[in-house]
Amino acid sequence: MYVAKIKIGLKAGVSDPEGNNTLKALHLLGFTSIEGVHTERIVELRLKAAKKEDALAEAERACRRLLTNPIIHDYRIEVEASG
Amino acid sequence: MYVAKIKIGLKAGVSDPEGNNTLKALHLLGFTSIEGVHTERIVELRLKAAKKEDALAEAERACRRLLTNPIIHDYRIEVEASG
Repeated sequence: MYVAKIKIGLKAGVSDPEGNNTLKALHLLGFTSIEGVHTERIVELRLKAAKKEDALAEAERACRRLLTNPIIHDYRIEVEASG
Repeated sequence: MYVAKIKIGLKAGVSDPEGNNTLKALHLLGFTSIEGVHTERIVELRLKAAKKEDALAEAERACRRLLTNPIIHDYRIEVEASG
């Protein structure tokens, strides 16, 4: 069993509405020392595979088919063996 | 200037609808080797502070006031100096 940790962020230059709205809300609450907010997602997959390379390839396929949008997202996959 | 990286996940036992729905969608697409999906968020704050401890305290306050829900979330904050 492997765990693939996929960190999905926005490409440089793509606007981050969640981050922008969070920043506005923080300013309204008085957090004036905060000057920028940037958000990312982590999707962790638990998957069966014969070896680490296979787990990485499967996670990569899942990213391309469902988890990420290549137009706006950058992602990085880390695979570790798990119990 | 500091960057506070806040990793927000669900407490053990709290259901993860985004993860569950992602898993269903992956199964529908034929990813049968994937047995579980777990999601987390990262919120990165860029903030001004006199020292690292102040930046950490401000990020902690932002978590309590807006960014996290103590009933369902666990979070961890890492602060680093930045340009």
